[in-house]
Amino acid sequence: MSESWVNLAERLGSDLHLELSGAGGRRAILIRALRDAVREGRLAPGTRLPPYRSLAADLGIARNTVADAYAELVAEGWLTARQGSGTQVADRATPPQRTRVPKRAPARPATPTYNLRQGQPDAASFPRTAWLASARRALNSAPNEAFGPGDPQGRIELRRALTEYLGRARGVRTDPERIVVCSGFAHGLRLLFGSGGGGVLRGPLAVESYGLGFHRSILETAGVRTVPLGLDEQGARIDELTEGQRVRGVLLTPAHQFPTGGPLHPARRTAVIDWARTRGGLVLEDDYDGEFRYDREPVGAVQGLDSERVIYVGSVSKSLSPGVRLGWLVLPEHLIDDVLAAKGEREAWAGVIDQLTLADLIESGHYDRHIRRMRQRYRRRRDQLVAALAEHAPHISPTGVAAGLHAVLRLPPGTEQSTTKAAAWQGLALDGLADFRHPDATMSAPDGLVVGYSTPPEHTYGAALEALCRALPPG
Amino acid sequence: MSESWVNLAERLGSDLHLELSGAGGRRAILIRALRDAVREGRLAPGTRLPPYRSLAADLGIARNTVADAYAELVAEGWLTARQGSGTQVADRATPPQRTRVPKRAPARPATPTYNLRQGQPDAASFPRTAWLASARRALNSAPNEAFGPGDPQGRIELRRALTEYLGRARGVRTDPERIVVCSGFAHGLRLLFGSGGGGVLRGPLAVESYGLGFHRSILETAGVRTVPLGLDEQGARIDELTEGQRVRGVLLTPAHQFPTGGPLHPARRTAVIDWARTRGGLVLEDDYDGEFRYDREPVGAVQGLDSERVIYVGSVSKSLSPGVRLGWLVLPEHLIDDVLAAKGEREAWAGVIDQLTLADLIESGHYDRHIRRMRQRYRRRRDQLVAALAEHAPHISPTGVAAGLHAVLRLPPGTEQSTTKAAAWQGLALDGLADFRHPDATMSAPDGLVVGYSTPPEHTYGAALEALCRALPPG
Repeated sequence: MSESWVNLAERLGSDLHLELSGAGGRRAILIRALRDAVREGRLAPGTRLPPYRSLAADLGIARNTVADAYAELVAEGWLTARQGSGTQVADRATPPQRTRVPKRAPARPATPTYNLRQGQPDAASFPRTAWLASARRALNSAPNEAFGPGDPQGRIELRRALTEYLGRARGVRTDPERIVVCSGFAHGLRLLFGSGGGGVLRGPLAVESYGLGFHRSILETAGVRTVPLGLDEQGARIDELTEGQRVRGVLLTPAHQFPTGGPLHPARRTAVIDWARTRGGLVLEDDYDGEFRYDREPVGAVQGLDSERVIYVGSVSKSLSPGVRLGWLVLPEHLIDDVLAAKGEREAWAGVIDQLTLADLIESGHYDRHIRRMRQRYRRRRDQLVAALAEHAPHISPTGVAAGLHAVLRLPPGTEQSTTKAAAWQGLALDGLADFRHPDATMSAPDGLVVGYSTPPEHTYGAALEALCRALPPG
Repeated sequence: MSESWVNLAERLGSDLHLELSGAGGRRAILIRALRDAVREGRLAPGTRLPPYRSLAADLGIARNTVADAYAELVAEGWLTARQGSGTQVADRATPPQRTRVPKRAPARPATPTYNLRQGQPDAASFPRTAWLASARRALNSAPNEAFGPGDPQGRIELRRALTEYLGRARGVRTDPERIVVCSGFAHGLRLLFGSGGGGVLRGPLAVESYGLGFHRSILETAGVRTVPLGLDEQGARIDELTEGQRVRGVLLTPAHQFPTGGPLHPARRTAVIDWARTRGGLVLEDDYDGEFRYDREPVGAVQGLDSERVIYVGSVSKSLSPGVRLGWLVLPEHLIDDVLAAKGEREAWAGVIDQLTLADLIESGHYDRHIRRMRQRYRRRRDQLVAALAEHAPHISPTGVAAGLHAVLRLPPGTEQSTTKAAAWQGLALDGLADFRHPDATMSAPDGLVVGYSTPPEHTYGAALEALCRALPPG
C-alpha cells in the first residue's frame, strides 16, 4: 500500500514520508509509521490528522484499522483525541531529542598488544563443546520446576555435584545442605558482610598484606575494617592474629597466596584453626586457583580441618571463565540460615541453566578433564616463562610458580614502576606488586611484577614473553 | 593391593579399615585412604604411623609413593612430621565433627496442591529446544574474548538485539549505548539506588499505593523513603506528585498496574512526563509484563515519550523464566556512566552464555514466537477464569484482565482474609490485595484476590479454578 501514502502527505500539507516496510499487519505498520513520524518530528505537535474515515478511504483499508491505530497512539500518548477537534499530534511528544551516541569516553582502556595481567584463564580454551553437550543433557532432563522461581541456596543438582567434587579434589568436608551457590567470590563476600551494614558477619577482618584491592573495597563498602597480616616464606603470619587489635575473622588464600605465590605452611594451617577455635574466630578460605598445582598433588583445603570454623569460597572464574557467573560458599552449619536470609527468598543471581549445566559438566567428568588439560597447558607456559627468564634475564628469578596462573618476579629495589612503564611501552600490560599492597601494611615492600601467564591466547604467548624480557631491568 | 592393608592395620594395632576403592594412582588412593581414616577418627590424634620405608615394603609399592603421600598429608595438616619422632596424626585434625544434615526447618513452606500466586510464567512452557538451538549458535559463533572478563554494560550482541526488539515491540527509544544489562528488576533497582547509601539516585521516591513489597524493601534497605500515590480507574494519581512532600522520582507500572491491573491513562502518561520535565524528576518504568496484552496491541512504553526522563526496566522473568537471570535498564544519557560505575569494572552478575543465547533467541525470531504462543495460552486461561467466575460466582467480577499474567477479583468488604484462608484449605495458594498495599497508603483499601493464572501447569489449571470458585464467598 505504499503508494497511497502520498495522499496522507498531501492531506497533511507536508512532504511526509512514512516508512511502511517491516513485519506485521496493516494496523501495526500504520501505527509504527505514524509513531516514527511523530517521534522524529516529521509530524509536528498540534498537527491535525485526517479523520479516520477519510484516511481509510485514501489508503484503501478498513476504517477499523485506522481507528484502532489512532486509538493505540492516543493510548501511548503520541496523539490526542478531543471531542470536536479531532485527532492531533500531542504537544509533549516533541520536540523529540534525537537519540545520540553518548559522548563518554570508552569505559575501558585500549587493549594492549600483549596482556600478562593476572586473574584470567585463557579465554580461547573455554570448553565450548563439552559445555554445550552438558547444557543439552541438562535442558533435556531438568524438571519443569527448574524454570520456576529458584531456590536461593542453588539447584540441588549442582550442590550435590559440588559436594562430591570438592571433597574429592579439594578435601572439602561438606554436604549439599552446607553449600550456597552465588555468582562468584565478590558476591559471596557481599552475602557474608552485607553492602552497607546488616551483614551476617562483622569486622574487623584480618587480611593478607598483599591481595586484591577489589576485595578490600567490597569490605570497605560494607563497613568492614581490614587489618593487614604480614607475609613471610611460610605464608600469612598467623601469630599476628593474637597481637594488637582483636579481629573476628581472617581472609586467607591458603593454597597459593595471592599474589606472592606460596602455599600456607602446614604449621600455619593448624595454627589458624587453633586460633579460630580458641578465640571464636572464623577463617575465610579463598580457594581461587586451588586446582592448579603443577609439581605435586594440590594442597587440600584448610576447610577440611574444621568445617565449623572455615568458610570455603570457590568459583569457576579461573577453572572455566569469569564470564560464567557461578561460585559457592561452603558454610559452617550455624551460618547457613543467615546467609540464605541475606540472599533473599528466591534465586535472583545465579542462572538456573548455568547451574544445571555445570552440575552435568562435573558429573560427566568433563570438568575434571578440562582442568587436567588446562593444568598441562599452564604448566607448559610456566616452564616457558622460567626458561625465558633463565636465558634472557638470569638475574631475575620467578617465585610462586609451583601452582596457580601467575608468577611473581622479584625486581631490584626501586625498579618496579619504571619496569611496568617500560612494559607498557612494549605494548605489554601487567601489574606491579605495589598494586596489591594493603594501604596499612607494615611489612617490607619488595619490588616485583605479577605475571599472569594464563591470560594471553596460546599463539601470542611467546611474543608476550619476549616483550616481558625486553622490559625487565638489566642485570 | 587391598589385602596388604591388613598389615598396616596390624602395625597400628587397631582394626583399621582403609577404603581403597576409587580412581587415581596408588599415591592418590593412599592419600585419600589415610585422610579419610584421620578425618573419621579411625586414626586417633597422636597415632604414630609406620616409617614410610616399612610401609612401602609392607604394601609392595615404591618408597617414594608412600613418602609423597605422607608429605602431602603433612602439607594439608592431617599429619605432623617432627625430627626424631616420625610421622604422627596431628592433634588438631580431631575430634572430627561429623558432618550433619542441618536441623533447620525447610526454607520454604510445603508446596500447595494448586498455585495461583502471581508473578511466574508457566514453568512447563520454557522453550527448551529453541533456547538450546540458540545456545549452540551462540557458543559456536562467540569470539574468544567473550570468555574473558565481561563488559559490565553487557554483551554488545545482546544490547543490539534488545535495541531492535524493545523499539519494535515496546516503542522504547534506545541505542545499545544506553542499555545496561543486569540480572533482573531487583538488581536494576539496587544499581540505581545502591544498597545502603551511595546510589546513583536518591529518594524520596513516589510509588503506587499497591505494588510488590519486595521492591519497597529493597528501596528501604537502600535508605530510600517511598511515598505512596493513590490509584483510581485511570491508574496512578500523577497529580499527587506535586502535592505534599517533594519527591525526586516516581516508580510506575504503566502498561498494567501491578497488581490492580489497568493501564496508565494516556493523559496520565503525558502528565507524568510533564511533571518530570518541569520538576527535574525521573520516571522509573517497570515494564514487567508489557508483552502480554490480549485484546489489542500492547500499549507502548512511556519511555518512548521522553528517553531522557524515563528509566525503562525490563527482564525475561515473565517472558521466559525467573530462572534465567537477565534484565536490562534503558537509561537517560546522563545516568549511563554512574550506573556503570555502580556495576563495577567487570561483569560480575549476568552470565555471558545466557546473554549471548538470549541475543540469538531474539534475533532468530524465536523469542517473538515464544511470546506469541504464551500470549495465546494465557489469553485462553484468562478466558477460562472469566467463564468459570461467570458460571460459579457471577457476583464476583474480575478486573485488570485486558493484559498481564494475573487478574484481580474484587471481594465483598471484609471477606479477603477469610477467602484466602478458605483457599488455603482447598490446597490453593494465592494472595489477597492487602499483601501488596503500601503501609502508608491512604486511599481506600478494597478487598480482593490477586489471581496469577499463568502459574499452574496446563493440566492442573482447570482444577485450580474449581478450587478457587469453591473458596470464594457466596453471592
